[in-house]
Amino acid sequence: MALSKRPYKGTRDFFPELKRGQDFLFKKMRETAHLFGYEPYDGPLLEEVDLYRAKSGEELINDQIYSFVDRGERHVAIRPEMTPTVARMVAQIHREVAKPIRWFAIANLMRYERPQKGRLREHWQFNCDIFGAPEGQGEVEILQVAISLFNNFGANENHFEIRLNDRRIVDFIFKKLLKLNAEASLKLYKIVDRAKKVSPEALDKMISDMGLSSDQNTIFEDYLKVDSFGDLMSFLSAHDYHEHDTLTSFVNQMDEMGYLPYLKFDPTIVRGLDYYTGMVFEIFDKHPENRRALCGGGAFADLLKIFDEDPLPGVGFGLGDVTLMDFLKVHDLLPNFARPKNDLFVSFQTADAKILALKLAKDLRALKLNVITTLEPLKFKKVFPTAEKKGARFVALFGDKELEENSVQFKNMQTKEQKEFSLGDMDKIVEFLR
Amino acid sequence: MALSKRPYKGTRDFFPELKRGQDFLFKKMRETAHLFGYEPYDGPLLEEVDLYRAKSGEELINDQIYSFVDRGERHVAIRPEMTPTVARMVAQIHREVAKPIRWFAIANLMRYERPQKGRLREHWQFNCDIFGAPEGQGEVEILQVAISLFNNFGANENHFEIRLNDRRIVDFIFKKLLKLNAEASLKLYKIVDRAKKVSPEALDKMISDMGLSSDQNTIFEDYLKVDSFGDLMSFLSAHDYHEHDTLTSFVNQMDEMGYLPYLKFDPTIVRGLDYYTGMVFEIFDKHPENRRALCGGGAFADLLKIFDEDPLPGVGFGLGDVTLMDFLKVHDLLPNFARPKNDLFVSFQTADAKILALKLAKDLRALKLNVITTLEPLKFKKVFPTAEKKGARFVALFGDKELEENSVQFKNMQTKEQKEFSLGDMDKIVEFLR
Repeated sequence: MALSKRPYKGTRDFFPELKRGQDFLFKKMRETAHLFGYEPYDGPLLEEVDLYRAKSGEELINDQIYSFVDRGERHVAIRPEMTPTVARMVAQIHREVAKPIRWFAIANLMRYERPQKGRLREHWQFNCDIFGAPEGQGEVEILQVAISLFNNFGANENHFEIRLNDRRIVDFIFKKLLKLNAEASLKLYKIVDRAKKVSPEALDKMISDMGLSSDQNTIFEDYLKVDSFGDLMSFLSAHDYHEHDTLTSFVNQMDEMGYLPYLKFDPTIVRGLDYYTGMVFEIFDKHPENRRALCGGGAFADLLKIFDEDPLPGVGFGLGDVTLMDFLKVHDLLPNFARPKNDLFVSFQTADAKILALKLAKDLRALKLNVITTLEPLKFKKVFPTAEKKGARFVALFGDKELEENSVQFKNMQTKEQKEFSLGDMDKIVEFLR
Repeated sequence: MALSKRPYKGTRDFFPELKRGQDFLFKKMRETAHLFGYEPYDGPLLEEVDLYRAKSGEELINDQIYSFVDRGERHVAIRPEMTPTVARMVAQIHREVAKPIRWFAIANLMRYERPQKGRLREHWQFNCDIFGAPEGQGEVEILQVAISLFNNFGANENHFEIRLNDRRIVDFIFKKLLKLNAEASLKLYKIVDRAKKVSPEALDKMISDMGLSSDQNTIFEDYLKVDSFGDLMSFLSAHDYHEHDTLTSFVNQMDEMGYLPYLKFDPTIVRGLDYYTGMVFEIFDKHPENRRALCGGGAFADLLKIFDEDPLPGVGFGLGDVTLMDFLKVHDLLPNFARPKNDLFVSFQTADAKILALKLAKDLRALKLNVITTLEPLKFKKVFPTAEKKGARFVALFGDKELEENSVQFKNMQTKEQKEFSLGDMDKIVEFLR
């Protein structure tokens, strides 16, 4: 039986058009990271499962990672996320290097997902992290990096918003105001996390299952209604919480720097339970047809603890290529990648001119021109359609006449200007082709 | 117990210095591919094991691949090589697209190796393939691409050589001259493949174990002594083989194009047994301390057969990042990647200038300058050492005086020129920083 030509479930075959699109995303990611002086890193495709067990939560380990036992009896997993890897790497070197540490990666990751729009089993993720920044400053910079990335694709506050919360505030509400123990607090975290993903009835049901008192219920429902920083401050004041200086000064600084239009307080943003200890955020598409999270991140205080290292505060985010591509498509912010781009298509119309043509291509490549050639004589009428498909700016033609005169005809595909050059006039040829 | 900070056996943690080096390799690979009009592709990290079973040989399946059964009972493997994936992808589209198809990928691959110099469990590989080229022309172009890649790193015929052979000639010798059946021929292929990797005694032992007749032995030993194209022609003529037109015309064309100094006939190059049906080659480092294969490839006639598709001839090569990096190191062809490169390091000496400093950074990033900032007041004496570590070309300073005057001091790190600008004079600032 013939083998299947389809890719493995939930993964993509990147044919050139799709790969050019992905390369465009990667280029903007790298450029943005470099604008802020973030340095590139990468880690192994496989990590020991223990690394994820220590940090990523049981749901990931039990249901979502690709794990197996290797031939040397090591229990390993294909990386489902980069944070454990970056933590492991930073743990190796943080004592020797100046702070802050600013790193970024663009890495392929796998999760055992049920494939759906915006969610595949394999995706590529842009990760940025800053470690050891002064209190509150890593948050400002990391959000700037994220906003700049979107700006660099041509997106602004009409296209996306950043929904923010702070785990310290949620902790205060759950533990001090609602007086929940650790277990009940965890349960309520999970309910909050799902609040916008389920129907209002299902949400009510989950909350009533918590068995909160009527006072607790009132506070919790009031909290869920908070939808601006101003509201939040009133809510917290009403409940005698006055330790929100970090959040206030963060919001002020973002305001002074002109980023306030991007920010929105959202009580339902709590992120996973395992890393984050301070600010948490998600970037949402504002397009009515694609209202989904594009990026998530936050601040963590003790990611290095599992390696017995001293605490080193960090802030970071991860942003996947699948959802980013959907975002750019729905907002019409993507160039067309259907065709490649080449400087020159070299053709020859007579077999004897082959070497002449291929040598010209060789010489022009040495001058850094991207040159695609035909490899057998090409009929004149096929030359221009082929050149167009190959996205060539110029065409070279070698017929009997050119062979005899040791010359070449060039045509500018856009202006249609045509010109003959002696093959000895390389300077003039290059000037024409620039 | 604290978790291990080490990466999984046989894999690398790419700290920024190493990652910058790898990015340098990737950039040259992409640039070289684009010089020849090769289009980018990529495939999934996982493929079904059946794909490798069909094409890659039992040694790979049994000893070298990372395979496991997924949660949906699919037997899958982390890709150990790209050729099966590219074959699967080309099989999907070859009927609809113009030939030749020119594709390249830079992909991470894993094999269960015993880690040693130049050989790790995870590496990245540059793959270039051309499908559907006219007879003999794909070989010329693919070798040009490979040679150009090395040239683009500054390497020439003093640094590396291409060792060539042709499976059709080896087949003729084994089957027609030595009159071996398929099984014995396969055995001898394996011996030839190992000829230069074992001691002369071990080689003699392997050959004598074949139980060849004295006539067979003479022919085989004569063959192993062939070490130039001229020798080969004499050897083949002496044995009445006259079907070497393809090889002859290939060598002539490479000569006319100026590539002959790179080529060397090598009777021991046969490559794996599974794909190749025509020319085969390996690129070798000529450095006495690093005489190893850097790249391997060849021509294949029927890679698409396993998908029940019509034959489509192809030629391709794969080149790994680990051996390439070793090659560039031993020949001193690598830039220094110890430090990042930034345009500007923005510092402030007084806390009140923070927002001014960060806003300047923001404005300059919008003009595509790479700007790294301090996030808290930095003592004057620490400014220049920090800027140097960050590879900054310029430094910005904000003290009390600048804060008062709404100005900024810039210093060119190379020329030491220092200049003050009003923060309103953005045009002049940018001019100074270019």
